[in-house]
This record gives sequence, structure tokens and C-alpha cells, in this order.
Amino acid sequence: MKTTRLDTRDSDFTERLNALTAWSEERDEEVGERVRAILRDVAKRGDAAVVEYTNRFDRRDAATLADLTVERPELEAALARLSDEQRQALEAAAARVRDYHERQKQESWSYRDADGTLLGQQVTALDRAGIYVPGGKAAYPSSVLMNALPAHVAGVGEIVMVSPAPDGELDDMVLAAAAVAGVERFFTVGGAQAVAALAFGTESIPAVDKIVGPGNIYVAEAKRQVFGKVGIDMIAGPSEILVVCDGHTDPEWIAMDLFSQAEHDEEAQAILVSPDAAFLDTVLETMERLAPTLEREAIIRTSMANRGALILARDLDDAFEVVNRISPEHLELSMDDAGRWAKKVRHAGAIFLGRHTPEALGDYCAGPNHVLPTSATARFSSPLGVYDFQKRSSLIGCSPEGASALGRVASVLARGERLTAHARSAELRIKQR
Amino acid sequence: MKTTRLDTRDSDFTERLNALTAWSEERDEEVGERVRAILRDVAKRGDAAVVEYTNRFDRRDAATLADLTVERPELEAALARLSDEQRQALEAAAARVRDYHERQKQESWSYRDADGTLLGQQVTALDRAGIYVPGGKAAYPSSVLMNALPAHVAGVGEIVMVSPAPDGELDDMVLAAAAVAGVERFFTVGGAQAVAALAFGTESIPAVDKIVGPGNIYVAEAKRQVFGKVGIDMIAGPSEILVVCDGHTDPEWIAMDLFSQAEHDEEAQAILVSPDAAFLDTVLETMERLAPTLEREAIIRTSMANRGALILARDLDDAFEVVNRISPEHLELSMDDAGRWAKKVRHAGAIFLGRHTPEALGDYCAGPNHVLPTSATARFSSPLGVYDFQKRSSLIGCSPEGASALGRVASVLARGERLTAHARSAELRIKQR
Repeated sequence: MKTTRLDTRDSDFTERLNALTAWSEERDEEVGERVRAILRDVAKRGDAAVVEYTNRFDRRDAATLADLTVERPELEAALARLSDEQRQALEAAAARVRDYHERQKQESWSYRDADGTLLGQQVTALDRAGIYVPGGKAAYPSSVLMNALPAHVAGVGEIVMVSPAPDGELDDMVLAAAAVAGVERFFTVGGAQAVAALAFGTESIPAVDKIVGPGNIYVAEAKRQVFGKVGIDMIAGPSEILVVCDGHTDPEWIAMDLFSQAEHDEEAQAILVSPDAAFLDTVLETMERLAPTLEREAIIRTSMANRGALILARDLDDAFEVVNRISPEHLELSMDDAGRWAKKVRHAGAIFLGRHTPEALGDYCAGPNHVLPTSATARFSSPLGVYDFQKRSSLIGCSPEGASALGRVASVLARGERLTAHARSAELRIKQR
Repeated sequence: MKTTRLDTRDSDFTERLNALTAWSEERDEEVGERVRAILRDVAKRGDAAVVEYTNRFDRRDAATLADLTVERPELEAALARLSDEQRQALEAAAARVRDYHERQKQESWSYRDADGTLLGQQVTALDRAGIYVPGGKAAYPSSVLMNALPAHVAGVGEIVMVSPAPDGELDDMVLAAAAVAGVERFFTVGGAQAVAALAFGTESIPAVDKIVGPGNIYVAEAKRQVFGKVGIDMIAGPSEILVVCDGHTDPEWIAMDLFSQAEHDEEAQAILVSPDAAFLDTVLETMERLAPTLEREAIIRTSMANRGALILARDLDDAFEVVNRISPEHLELSMDDAGRWAKKVRHAGAIFLGRHTPEALGDYCAGPNHVLPTSATARFSSPLGVYDFQKRSSLIGCSPEGASALGRVASVLARGERLTAHARSAELRIKQR
């Protein structure tokens, strides 16, 4: 199996690691311009434009937007069509994801200071959220759960789902997942036209307050362009895993964990770091042996060759230097005392602790979200969560005594900024003694 | 005083209100192109490019970036130069802002499920944050406190401040505020070149993980373009206030509260809504009488004429319909029982409760942040806070029993998505009974 071998002791290690992990979004001017045109058109012509683009890009034959709308009964019918095993798995996953996310819910808080002034924040849910779910060959029911359930737990008033259905094909598991996750309306529309419809609203598709979920470069560019008009979540890059192993995990487990990332697509990145050189060799041999047993062998070989790596570290401390440099989306700590070592992690989307915690469990059903910051954006962003569907309003309620004391301070500072009306507004509340 | 009068009973009310509150960022192609060029140039040439742009745009005469750097001792010297009254006001404001923000700090959390599997989130601070503070005629020390203190409370490793100093002029209060707020390095650089330097890093200016703070359209466009490479906070529009009054507050207080918003700039928006028509008339007369006593009378008259309004509502319930339609940055509830009424507010940046709580107190020293979502973005975003400088990593640590049970669920779902390596990675952890 072709992949990159690195050693942290090599003088060019940092340079080679940077080159390997570098990922820059393809943002050419042409994509920007095409997306701008679609946004303008949908803002202007509404449903008619959405129908036209969908017929053209997804080879549909819709007369009106009603032909692209899936109603709640159809979602429930799809759920009923699943095998018992599939339905139970979906419901078990949803129950765990819901339970975990319930614990993220933020509540309003307030306190009173010594003067009796009330201070705090009032936390509320978004009125309406738009969930973008990729369609076609990568239609993932788990993505429906992971995007819609946090919104549902947050108490979002209405969850609107969009997902393209090329050639009109719909996956029962995706429809069933929407039913399980509390989706009320599902439009089989994708691309920049779907983002435009959610941002501006059309006759049939309601304008939402925030759009979440991953998509192709047109979707990413459209989200970037409507940001400000509506909220968006992060812009997703290719998925990645970094496995740290002390050399004492079954090499088959590690090989398969790397493959589970590499099989996503040719751009996916799977990296193993270990202080045990012999273990790295064994994992490589194991990968070679197992690869032919997998349906997606070709994708796996390409992604391991282009973006994968086995890295030899001096010791585990050194391995954690690599972790914080990469700031991976998924971090698997396949080692003893993983919980203790996790405290050394400054940046990661999700940390999988111990040999019994493969990333795949987190992708589907452990509970935490699988929408995670990629491409080192874990340096400043977080997993998708209930907090993405809540917002805060500051609360300030001055007592007369508090207003008088604060008014004196504000007056000095406002006059320092030469904002006299600010100063006088504050001074009007100062009590004359 | 010229301003718009509206009545919620008028048939064209919604239309006229929408026209009045509409605000669309000026984003012409030319600005986008100029910013793109500056970003590229700074990414490529570093310090040299930053010095050139700064000399050109801010009429400086710097030879190297060292000439544009203010060191910590200079910040402290500025603090020492302030009058006792000013220093005490600055320190009192900082103490209150710090105390309030301490209560926003989020802690790591975890729990174990019935199988002994650990689930939770590890919360960490950003390594490095960049604070953009507008300079020139609108150099606000309060903005330094409001942007830097939450980062400081969050435990950000290093806070880098940038602010333009046109003609080399620096305000002592701004420097002193930086000293008080724990800023370590201050570069007197602004515009798109400052955003570029913070995003990419130069020889002298370190790359940061997130850039916060308001600026002109070049700054806003630059933040939009670097988003993804680094985190950014919201894109700020003009400042606004909506005052709801039952008609029983001193009209001078209300007039001055409206002026304190209108004096910011010609684009600022000050709106009063009340069910008491006579009160609206009295406030208007009072505004006419007070306006000539204010230094910024001309700005106030322009912003009240172009963007201000007095709105007559049917009753208070009707007034709160207007509140949620506008989703204001600042909302002042000058009325009895303001705390109870506040629960009806679905969207607002900050809510000022009762007659003794003018916005000006919140701008400077009440405690809550004055960086707030404008232009109805309170529908999906929150005041700047400690949470903007923290991020979360999911924690998943399966017990062998938990891995076995979860593996069965994940296997079914992964095979449903035709991701065989995911399924097999999960299945390897299933215990054979």
C-alpha cells in the first residue's frame, strides 16, 4: 500500500507534514460568479428559478415546487418500509444522539449585583433552521440525524430540510431518518439554488435564520455569500482522522480505523502516528492484506497514497506535538490512559479515547455530533451542537441606585470618547444628593 | 425634528417599516477585488507590504514594522498619564465587564452511560486572538475593553491588537484601555492589510486563530474573505436602538436615549414605539428642544431624518410584535414590569430593562458586552462573549461493553450507507458471545 512515511526527527519533517495536510478550498472566480448569478435569480424569481435549476442540474422533470416537496406522511411511510433491524438501528442511534445533545442545551441565567442591578443572558432558540443534506451517491441518513436533532433539541420552531435527488432517486433510510429527527418539510432541491431559497425564501420554501450542513463547492460558496443575511455553520473540507497508537492495539483494528476514513473519498486523510517503528510496519502490511477485501479499495488506495501517512514519533509526548500541530477533525487515542493524555490535546474536533473507541461509532451512534471542524479549524471552532441553534440576548436591569453609580462611570468614559448624548443619557439617571 | 412617523394600524405599515430598517452592506465588486489584492500581497510579502499600505492609507512614515508597534510599557505609560477620574472610570468599567464575563466561561463536562462509556466535551481557549479596534476619529477605549476582556477571561494564550493610527495619532485612553485589558502587543495597522497580517502572519505580526471587532467595509470584506482560514465574529452593520415606552417615562430621558444612538453616525438608527400617541408628540418636541444643546446635533438630525422613527402601536402586545419583527441590536424597555415583558422578546442583542437602564450604561460599564448583533442578525447570533474565544472537542471513550453494543448499531447503519470499512471497524469491537 502506497502511503507517505514520515519521521519527526527528520529535518524536513515540519515542511513535509505541512505540505501533506495543506488543503485549500477551490475557490475560483468562475464558481463565485456562477453562484452569485444563481442567488440573484432565486432571490428575484423564487420557485420558478429553483424548479428550473433543479430540473437542469438534477435531471428532474418538475412542473412546480410541489413536485419537489416530500411531505411528512411520505417520510413516515419510508420509516415503515425499513427492515426491523434498520429501523431499530436508526431509532437507537437517534435516541443516543438526542440524549447527548440534551446535555448541551444552554439555559438563561442572571444575577443581581450589590446595588440590586440585574445582569444575565436570555437564551432562545432560532425560529427556523435550514438543514442541507448532501444527496446522490453520498446520501447519508446519519447526516440527517446529526444536523436535525441538535436543532430539534434546541427547540427550533421549524426545521426545513433540503437535499438534492438526482434523477428523482430518494433513499428510504434518508427519508426515514428525517421522520425520526422531527423534520417537518423536505424539499428535494440542492446546490446553490437550495441555499438561495433558504436564505431569501420563495413562494414555497420559507426563509430560515441559519443554514447548516455540508455540501459541494457550490453549496460552500453559496453559504459564504449569504452569510450575514442568515447564519451559517462552518465551511467543511475533506474529512480526516489522526490515530495515535502506542503500538499495543491489534494492527487490524488500526488498519480498519484508517480505512474507515480513507474510504470516504479520494481527498480524505488518514494518518497514524506512533513511537513504535515496527508497529508502523505491521500496520502497513496489514493494510495491504485487508485492502482487497473492501468494496472501496480503489478510493482507499488513492487517498492513502495522496493524503495518508504513517508517522514515527520519538515518544508519546512528541506524538502529541504532532496532534496539536495538525488539529485534526477526528483524533483516535488508541493507547492506555487515553483520558489523561486527552488533556494535552489543545485542538481537535472529536477525541476517541482508548482502543475500543473507533471513529465509526462516533459517526453513527455514540451520541456526539459527527459534523466536526475540518482542516485545522478546530483551532477556533467546535462540533455542531445545540448551541448552534440557540442565541443569547444580554439582560441589564439597573436599580435606581445602580443606575446612579454606573451613570457616573459612563459619563466620564463617554465624555472621553466625545459622545455627549451618551454621557447625558447616563447623567439623567444620576441621583442628586 | 424631522423623522418618520408610523402607525401599526396603517395598511402599508409593514412595507414602510421594512424599507426603513432594510440595510444592505455595500459590497461592490471593486471593494472585493481591492481587498483580494491586498490579502494576496500581504500573504506574499509580509511586513514590507503591511508597512507600504499603512504609510499610504494612514499617512504614516514607517521604515519597518517596528515603527508601527506599541510595546507594553508604552501602554502602561498612557494609563499613568490619565487623570485619576479617567483611570478610575476605566478600571471600574473593566472590573464590571470582567466580572460579568467570568460567568460566561464554559467548563468541560462529561458523564458515563449505563455501559460505562464516557461522553462529554472538553472546552479549551484559543491559542491566539486578534482584536481589531477602529481608529481615527472613532477610537473607542470601550471597544478595546469589550473585545479584549472576553478573550482574556477565556484564557486566550495571546491577544494581539491592531488599530489604525492615521497621521500617527494615538489616543491615550485607547492605549490605557489596552493596558487594563491585558493586551500584550499592539500594532498600529488597520484596514484589510491588518486583517491579512493577522490571518496569514508576517515576520512581525503573528498569525491568530480568530479575528474579532468591527471596522469599515474594507475590514468587513477582508474578514469575510479570510473566514475559514481563521475564525471571525459577526460582520457589523450600523448601530440601532429600539425603545419601547409605555408613555410614563420622563420624555427627556427617552429623547436623550434616542440621541445617544443617533449621534454615532448618519447611518445609526433610533426608533421609539409606544401605544401613547400624545407621548410620541411630547418626545418629538423634547428632541427638538434638546438637539441644539448637543455637539453632534447635525449627525443626530441626519440620522433621525433618514433612519429614525416614532411608531404608534395599538397596545404593548402590538409593540412587542414590532420588537420581534425588527430584532434590534439594542432594545430598551422603558416601562413597568420590564422583566416580565422581556420574556416575549424572541430576538435582540441586548435588552435594557426599566426606566433606569439607558443603553449608554451598557455601552460602557454595566458588564455585558457592547459588541452586539446588528441588522436583525440577533435572529441567529449573540453578543460577543467568552464563548467566542473557547471551543469544544467531543469526548467519546467506549468501555468494551459499550463498544460491543454500539458496534452492532453502527454496523447496520454503515452497511445501509454502503461504507464497509466503517462497518468492519465497528464490528471488530463486537464481543463474540
